[in-house]
Amino acid sequence: MSSSQTKSRPKGGLFIVSAPSGAGKTSLCNRLVDFFPHLRHSVSFTTRAQRAGEEDGVDYFFITPESFKEMVEQGAFAEWAEVHGNRYGTAIETLEHWREQGCDVLLDIDIQGAAQLRKAYGEGVFIFILPPDLKELRKRLENRQTDDAEVIERRMKNARDEIRESVNYDYVVVNDDFDIALDALKSIVIAEGCRTARVLPGLTEVFDLDI
Amino acid sequence: MSSSQTKSRPKGGLFIVSAPSGAGKTSLCNRLVDFFPHLRHSVSFTTRAQRAGEEDGVDYFFITPESFKEMVEQGAFAEWAEVHGNRYGTAIETLEHWREQGCDVLLDIDIQGAAQLRKAYGEGVFIFILPPDLKELRKRLENRQTDDAEVIERRMKNARDEIRESVNYDYVVVNDDFDIALDALKSIVIAEGCRTARVLPGLTEVFDLDI
Repeated sequence: MSSSQTKSRPKGGLFIVSAPSGAGKTSLCNRLVDFFPHLRHSVSFTTRAQRAGEEDGVDYFFITPESFKEMVEQGAFAEWAEVHGNRYGTAIETLEHWREQGCDVLLDIDIQGAAQLRKAYGEGVFIFILPPDLKELRKRLENRQTDDAEVIERRMKNARDEIRESVNYDYVVVNDDFDIALDALKSIVIAEGCRTARVLPGLTEVFDLDI
Repeated sequence: MSSSQTKSRPKGGLFIVSAPSGAGKTSLCNRLVDFFPHLRHSVSFTTRAQRAGEEDGVDYFFITPESFKEMVEQGAFAEWAEVHGNRYGTAIETLEHWREQGCDVLLDIDIQGAAQLRKAYGEGVFIFILPPDLKELRKRLENRQTDDAEVIERRMKNARDEIRESVNYDYVVVNDDFDIALDALKSIVIAEGCRTARVLPGLTEVFDLDI
């Protein structure tokens, strides 16, 4: 981005990415964050115990169940969920903190989280990543060799349901060829940075605009 | 684009680009059309006489003033205007022809044309190209050495008015560095091709979607 493009981005964007398991979301999101210096993975709050090597404020914000409950009651979360007895949540404050500094924020969450966030936060660019087809998805799940047959069947069943939710997203990226899918994601981030509502507020003085 | 991305684009997009004179619109649009095989410059109808080297159906569709008037009365134009006694117009049929074939169409028109098209056609992605500031715009107009001082003053006055219309566009691209601006335009074309409404209709059978 040139200096003028940076100057013209007063508040950063929020990108929410969902996908069925096996579509390649994690790899794509990691590469995307590596590519854009101004794009940051959102750090979640969690009640789960800190593991060796994990850093508070980098991997997660580690808090007590009581603090988490308080934050839920205060409406502090854009979305949160309980997984295997632990709670995980994205604070509105975290999103605002980075966006106010002009940084884009990337949130890699499931369709329930995305739906919650849409209601509780009301902003964001919603991106759904699809496999080219279900046969390829099954192949990728099998090739990972991390799940047994039963888990794969459950993931496939979930995938069919999740994919139906893609209609509620702004963009759909088909991950057939990884590099093409990554290029599409990069393009979405750049294009959204050119949205009139994001560019013009930074140019009101330059062009004497009254917006 | 991979085959799956192509398959998932049942109808092409329409990109309308406007800019004040000197912002670099023509060079950017030409490079953009060269880059994407599926993106085509729209061919206008005109009543102006065909010049040597111009090809009917390639440079323009050359028609009589009577035929043009008929087309206006039939509501055949997405936008049209009279310039120096000649009429120029974009037929809805031209846009639909390419879009139905899955091609994107690029329309390089002024703000009045864009406003007309928004009303008469109701679709399209509207992009406004801005110079970094008015001082740089004046410098570029002077460097072209095609206009005398009076014409430059008029263009500068028009530019100030035109730039205020940018608020009605979907995207604003600042042409400070040409390559960055071109990259932004490319990203907009790719991102718009990933819009859910454009991708999902091509995937209903693949994923058994009911949309």
